Amino acid sequence: MKVIDEPAALRAVLDEARRLGHDVGFVPTMGALHGGHRSLVRRAVAECDRVVVSLFVNPLQFGPGEDFESYPRDLAADLAQAEEAGADLVFAPSTRTMYPEGPLTTVSVRYLSDALEGRSRPGHFDGVATVVAKLFAIVGPCLAYFGEKDYQQLLIVSRLVHDLSFPVTVVPCPTIREPDGLALSSRNAYLSPDDRKAAPIFYWSLLAGKRAIEENGVTDPAQVSAVMQGAAGREGRARLDYAQVARPHDLCVPQVITSEVRLMIAGHVGRTRLIDNLVASPPDKEGAP
Amino acid sequence: MKVIDEPAALRAVLDEARRLGHDVGFVPTMGALHGGHRSLVRRAVAECDRVVVSLFVNPLQFGPGEDFESYPRDLAADLAQAEEAGADLVFAPSTRTMYPEGPLTTVSVRYLSDALEGRSRPGHFDGVATVVAKLFAIVGPCLAYFGEKDYQQLLIVSRLVHDLSFPVTVVPCPTIREPDGLALSSRNAYLSPDDRKAAPIFYWSLLAGKRAIEENGVTDPAQVSAVMQGAAGREGRARLDYAQVARPHDLCVPQVITSEVRLMIAGHVGRTRLIDNLVASPPDKEGAP
Repeated sequence: MKVIDEPAALRAVLDEARRLGHDVGFVPTMGALHGGHRSLVRRAVAECDRVVVSLFVNPLQFGPGEDFESYPRDLAADLAQAEEAGADLVFAPSTRTMYPEGPLTTVSVRYLSDALEGRSRPGHFDGVATVVAKLFAIVGPCLAYFGEKDYQQLLIVSRLVHDLSFPVTVVPCPTIREPDGLALSSRNAYLSPDDRKAAPIFYWSLLAGKRAIEENGVTDPAQVSAVMQGAAGREGRARLDYAQVARPHDLCVPQVITSEVRLMIAGHVGRTRLIDNLVASPPDKEGAP
Repeated sequence: MKVIDEPAALRAVLDEARRLGHDVGFVPTMGALHGGHRSLVRRAVAECDRVVVSLFVNPLQFGPGEDFESYPRDLAADLAQAEEAGADLVFAPSTRTMYPEGPLTTVSVRYLSDALEGRSRPGHFDGVATVVAKLFAIVGPCLAYFGEKDYQQLLIVSRLVHDLSFPVTVVPCPTIREPDGLALSSRNAYLSPDDRKAAPIFYWSLLAGKRAIEENGVTDPAQVSAVMQGAAGREGRARLDYAQVARPHDLCVPQVITSEVRLMIAGHVGRTRLIDNLVASPPDKEGAP
């Protein structure tokens, strides 16, 4: 596995691969790799000839007072995991390489960036869209693998690719979970043992919302939100930020749940902010298969 | 010369050219080609193996009440000129192809977009940056030719390429002028015969500003602006918008003119808005060569 820290060097290697007719798979990450990332890399390895993993803690997507400084960084461990999962290349640029003077250019995706995580973390998705556009410009034509755990990010990246015609196919990949349901996340490393025990509460709240829709036939989004809020409220260590029902393509709250929705949840356990989401589909009223 | 209207088809042709080791030259235009555009194409033809000219009147860069609807469009004439200048390919997409649903994604370049034309045409440069980013994503690695006549646009595009790491080399090309000094522009077609006679006033005003700096040793930007305003005021058909001295790399107004500056001017002649700019360098105080 080759480690590269300069954009031009990475592009040269990938251009050469494409010249040979090889498909490029790309897994952008902020490092602190875990089983979720490894599943993305393995999927990319299965589907592409050459797989590059980027490791870059992007300052643009952290707000003031967020955890940019303390975000877990362990290059040696990340390289070992990327290699074990089968990556051919790791792109690990410095902040100075990526943003030599502080960028003046911002990429924003309206509407999709405003709700949910965007409301709680103003500017976050502009930072995501800007770095992802830059990484796509560096990597060039590829399949790019994103986890559904960051569902809003996945939508925004997909829309960005569509709107700006990047020669990129975005491949959504399922969320990987611990046995108790906690979605894998680099930020889980922040959890104290007691917080860790409490952390699956957001997943369990999503499951409660899903049951309300799928088994109890609840069609009112506000009622589903109330069910999720009630479930989350049972864990004293958890502080809910939002629990919402969203249409899968535009994140609008439907008036009535008549087709598949995404249940979106976020909050703190102790001082650690966690997000999760789950798909839910109302039962077919006709009972058709 | 081949005419293409689908992004994927253009990318396929250009990827194949690059696979053969050919350099791609790109001249983005809004059509209504004139001698300035032809000079860009000829330069690209001289420096690159394959040259593509895009013709697309980008709605995103027109404000309400501007001339999007009336902007001159003549595909047959543009194709003839592109071919005559030696282009290999013309990319002429429809608005529907470029923006099937109306884009949610915006690319902005802070600071550089706010002054001068940006103040007079709010949102204009976001529209430019967005379509140029999209065209660069479609075209892929290339040399891209831009006229200095749109100097602020040239700076913004250069910064966009730098910040987002597009594999594009921006090539600035000199402004082409009529014998009386009027900078070639598609919007010159709007000028009535009397307006046309008056239109070089902005260039003459730039020349007056340049003389003030280079021959009279004026170092106060406000005084140079006053000289340009005075010159422009002598033409009754002209209505000045701005006449400013700007540092060439960031468009800031210097406190004192001690090195090369750009003189930037804009205004209306009759109902036609025109812009122009000129470089000026203070005399060397030591008298060194």
